[in-house]
Amino acid sequence: MNILKVNIPGREYDIKIQKGILDNAGVLIAEVSPVGKAAVVTDENVAPLYAEKLLDSLKKSGFSPFLVTVPAGESSKSLKYLEFLYAELLSNKITRSDIVIALGGGVVGDLTGFCASTLLRGIPFVQIPTTLLSQVDSSVGGKVAINLPAGKNLAGAFYQPRLVIIDPNCLDTLSDKIFSDGMAEVIKYGAILDENFFAKLENSASRAKVMEIIEDVIYHSCDLKRQVVEDDELDLGGRMILNFGHTFGHAIEKKYNFETYTHGEAVAAGMVMAAEYGESLGITKDNSKDRIRSLISAFGLPEEIDIDEQTLSGSIAVDKKGKGDFVSLILPEKIGKVIIKDIKKDHIWTK
Amino acid sequence: MNILKVNIPGREYDIKIQKGILDNAGVLIAEVSPVGKAAVVTDENVAPLYAEKLLDSLKKSGFSPFLVTVPAGESSKSLKYLEFLYAELLSNKITRSDIVIALGGGVVGDLTGFCASTLLRGIPFVQIPTTLLSQVDSSVGGKVAINLPAGKNLAGAFYQPRLVIIDPNCLDTLSDKIFSDGMAEVIKYGAILDENFFAKLENSASRAKVMEIIEDVIYHSCDLKRQVVEDDELDLGGRMILNFGHTFGHAIEKKYNFETYTHGEAVAAGMVMAAEYGESLGITKDNSKDRIRSLISAFGLPEEIDIDEQTLSGSIAVDKKGKGDFVSLILPEKIGKVIIKDIKKDHIWTK
Repeated sequence: MNILKVNIPGREYDIKIQKGILDNAGVLIAEVSPVGKAAVVTDENVAPLYAEKLLDSLKKSGFSPFLVTVPAGESSKSLKYLEFLYAELLSNKITRSDIVIALGGGVVGDLTGFCASTLLRGIPFVQIPTTLLSQVDSSVGGKVAINLPAGKNLAGAFYQPRLVIIDPNCLDTLSDKIFSDGMAEVIKYGAILDENFFAKLENSASRAKVMEIIEDVIYHSCDLKRQVVEDDELDLGGRMILNFGHTFGHAIEKKYNFETYTHGEAVAAGMVMAAEYGESLGITKDNSKDRIRSLISAFGLPEEIDIDEQTLSGSIAVDKKGKGDFVSLILPEKIGKVIIKDIKKDHIWTK
Repeated sequence: MNILKVNIPGREYDIKIQKGILDNAGVLIAEVSPVGKAAVVTDENVAPLYAEKLLDSLKKSGFSPFLVTVPAGESSKSLKYLEFLYAELLSNKITRSDIVIALGGGVVGDLTGFCASTLLRGIPFVQIPTTLLSQVDSSVGGKVAINLPAGKNLAGAFYQPRLVIIDPNCLDTLSDKIFSDGMAEVIKYGAILDENFFAKLENSASRAKVMEIIEDVIYHSCDLKRQVVEDDELDLGGRMILNFGHTFGHAIEKKYNFETYTHGEAVAAGMVMAAEYGESLGITKDNSKDRIRSLISAFGLPEEIDIDEQTLSGSIAVDKKGKGDFVSLILPEKIGKVIIKDIKKDHIWTK
């Protein structure tokens, strides 16, 4: 088993990664929680695949689990479903010495984590992410949130889980599109922080090949994010490099109403745009841009997505990471090394 | 000015207490916040009394304040008004470098604090409590919350303010009933922790007399709560003595649908019940019970409220501070000294 220790001061927890580990979840959760009630929150897609296995494992370890299912998709990350979760957990008489478990992708993790962080002013929480994106992105950082009508992730908390359990076998049921959604973030970690890791991905540049080393890939992705987040728990600056590809990516997601492209697809094209922009400024060197393009493409991610300059500028003008008239762009110098460059919003270049 | 420093690790803040201090709020807030937007949240009762004064003071110090008003009363501590606050603050384009100010009693403080703790994952927050109860109770401890259909304060957070500003002149507009609501908690602090303070209150046993020493009384009440809370920030045990009078008090509030009696009135009668119960067990000594009765009575608080045994037992059975079959009762040994006694729920005595 790969075990990654995350050390947010005062709130250390483990990420445990192993194929088939879901069968053993009850035992692992009993190591971090008194054996009481366990609220398992999942969505309608994940429930028929993995809920029974998890409930069985929890029962075997002495927990009294109960299942709460929300609809699949982003619309569940809302005040409406937060209220629903509050009511379901309370009607099952949950207390602060019980445990809340999120079984699913990013939507389930974010909604459930925010519920756990606020219900009774905080109930301990375990994450079992089942998509590649949530395994490599949500496992580290403690960000939980819901969307509000005014925008995404606008209400939330920083709330660290007691434990994250990652079973890469869960990835087998993902479509290629959703698998690649996560690969975009994996590629990003290599591009911003670790050329060796990037090269390793280049040597395993297909879904089948990457699955052969998936435990390592997930471990290494989480570890890279951990290094960034431990230095900047409250998101005050250092985490900014994780935003590589995201400024352009968010503009793309928004233009296409968060429907046509996955987050990963938009970020993939956004990373290429950032590399192109970096080249035009003489910052991005060697064949970095081409290596990013090739690797993205190998996982079926789009190298470019059409977006006009006006839409791009409009999106960047209201980007929540903006600082007055400036936006901080993350630009690669070479693979494994990025810089943060503050650029006047109205000077943003587009093709 | 009386300044009390509260030292929750990593999140130190001051409670500043002075008659007329509201005129100077802008200057004080500018010491703990960048001068940007300031969301002032209040209710319909408080707005006409103090909102303009606060907005003026903020403007003078360079802030761009805006006012958000919710209905007066407990029903505003709801998901509905949380959603309303989120929308109002976002439509004013608030950011994490701005400040949210709660101007009002406990309802406004709890709702606004919870909003501030979660919106954009946390916006700095200042409390300006305007009732005696909120001045001596909500200023210390960081508990913020909303009610859910299943019960009071069920969703919330521990969120420390940057600053608490207490202007005792705000108490002049309170009715006697609401003034006494706060006095019950003031008396409680003396009864559980400080006989000298209790004796001081006995020597100033009327609203008029206590107002002559009100800055001291508020300071001392907050300071006593501070000592308890600093040892137990996450409410894991030590704070329990603050529950004196509350187990019986909650049963009373519930029986009368939170309408007939204020929180303070229910707690006052609850303290007498606890002292009587303590006497019956031989724990409460000397004339402690009578001193509590007399002081409560001097402030127009009820010494007893009719509640039948069955209602009492039913309420205690579901008390959220309960531990399985037991409930921890706080019983006075003498004025200034209480003990925690775990008692089987079905052995709870009533008259």
